[in-house]
Amino acid sequence: MDIGFIGLGIMGRPMALNLAKAGHTLFVPERASLPEDIRAAATVLPDAAAVAAKAEVVILMLPDTPDVEAVLFGAGGIAASLKPGTLVIDMSSISPTVTKGFAETLVAAGCGWVDAPVSGGEVGAKAASLTIMCGGSDADFARALPLFELMGKNITHVGPAGAGQTCKVANQIIVALNIEAVAEALVFATKAGADPARVRQALMGGFASSKILEIHGERMIKRTFAPGFRIRLHQKDLNLALSAGRDLGVALPNTASAQQLFSAVAAMGGADLDHSALVKALETMAAQKVAAD
Amino acid sequence: MDIGFIGLGIMGRPMALNLAKAGHTLFVPERASLPEDIRAAATVLPDAAAVAAKAEVVILMLPDTPDVEAVLFGAGGIAASLKPGTLVIDMSSISPTVTKGFAETLVAAGCGWVDAPVSGGEVGAKAASLTIMCGGSDADFARALPLFELMGKNITHVGPAGAGQTCKVANQIIVALNIEAVAEALVFATKAGADPARVRQALMGGFASSKILEIHGERMIKRTFAPGFRIRLHQKDLNLALSAGRDLGVALPNTASAQQLFSAVAAMGGADLDHSALVKALETMAAQKVAAD
Repeated sequence: MDIGFIGLGIMGRPMALNLAKAGHTLFVPERASLPEDIRAAATVLPDAAAVAAKAEVVILMLPDTPDVEAVLFGAGGIAASLKPGTLVIDMSSISPTVTKGFAETLVAAGCGWVDAPVSGGEVGAKAASLTIMCGGSDADFARALPLFELMGKNITHVGPAGAGQTCKVANQIIVALNIEAVAEALVFATKAGADPARVRQALMGGFASSKILEIHGERMIKRTFAPGFRIRLHQKDLNLALSAGRDLGVALPNTASAQQLFSAVAAMGGADLDHSALVKALETMAAQKVAAD
Repeated sequence: MDIGFIGLGIMGRPMALNLAKAGHTLFVPERASLPEDIRAAATVLPDAAAVAAKAEVVILMLPDTPDVEAVLFGAGGIAASLKPGTLVIDMSSISPTVTKGFAETLVAAGCGWVDAPVSGGEVGAKAASLTIMCGGSDADFARALPLFELMGKNITHVGPAGAGQTCKVANQIIVALNIEAVAEALVFATKAGADPARVRQALMGGFASSKILEIHGERMIKRTFAPGFRIRLHQKDLNLALSAGRDLGVALPNTASAQQLFSAVAAMGGADLDHSALVKALETMAAQKVAAD
């Protein structure tokens, strides 16, 4: 299949290579930063519009909502060059409410649409074991599925356009708040004089058990805050949650609070630490002497 | 062994019966409300002081910190009647900071002390499958362990006196905040137009997975809010967390926020619903029209 791939960064590059390895024809837009293995595996065209004109399927893997908007509808954007029937698959993690608008515009122009954000990080992208959360019509999802199976393992069709992004935001809310929960519990236990490692051990297997208690709880105890998933990126995702929450009229009090704690750690210079370092905000509050001035 | 058991309510009664079944001799204080099976299995003495004077081990299973304080040190309290060498095991869920004071006083008087709050509810108490989180010296824990093995399955010696209660508070913090996390995510997803059941399914097995997403997430989706564990009781436990947090100088922002949401559901008449009904507070905020007056 002729696939256009736009956004060949840490995630996009191994995902595109997995598609090429399976025999698909890749088209990518020229950029000085294109990695050598992508140049070897793909046909490089002058710009995104040229890629869109060639492709049956265009996959986007971009940093944030404005980047996707610019590639689709900005100056030189691909929307003008897409042939009717082209399937656009946005695998970026962006705003679910804005995504619905993108999908409506493209579907009205005769294109297909699937939003398909992923989790699993660079490791999952390389191993083709990403979790992929999908929104779109049944027909568009069915068309995209064979490609998803070359990039991921847990592939769920959550609902109509936007539902993939909604699911990803829900995921990032739970992950952040479970990290915050474990952080409050372990800081409390430590300040009360208990050994946090024994507390974590006692709680595993009961109602408090979670993937986050298992993995991020251990990082907090062993003080291993190399990423992993950076606070900077989780701040972006919670911003998506909070701004979509405002659009939708949903109060997200603990998401807002977790975002403040991430900001506090970022202000201390920790934006590129693993998100489990959220615990440092609570520790700092519990440890400081207040000066009178 | 001669065991005094004080507090024969929903939890204490089956726990005491499991000890009697194993051949231990039970002494309990007279109360009009004593169940018939306890009268049949135990020797009923006039009051708690008489029970304390007879027992090698006294187990307490009482509702809250002031109840334990009254039984230990109030008018007619047992502290005055305990023989040196008697082991006091407090299986109530009460304040970890206050517990340390109780333990110091009793240990100074020549008694042993283990705080050993449980989780697992009435079902776990009947099945002798409670999780038991223990604080006390190695010697006191070793003395209590054979009794714990008649009442529970996951028995952890977390640390010195108070550490059992600290661990229980940590557990209740994580459980409440994981419920709140799942509630924010599912209300968000629902308002964004996604099917919360499919979102939950997509998130199970990934980083967002937890016992709470599995069990309480399903209760929120299926609208089954019969307890389970009542909001009223979780409010008590978060009050322990917040008041001990204040004593210790630990900020617990999301615990405080979850407590407010429990209060909101209680104000709507939901104090005796399962704690997963916390979701109703967020739903109500997302659903109401604001009047101008």
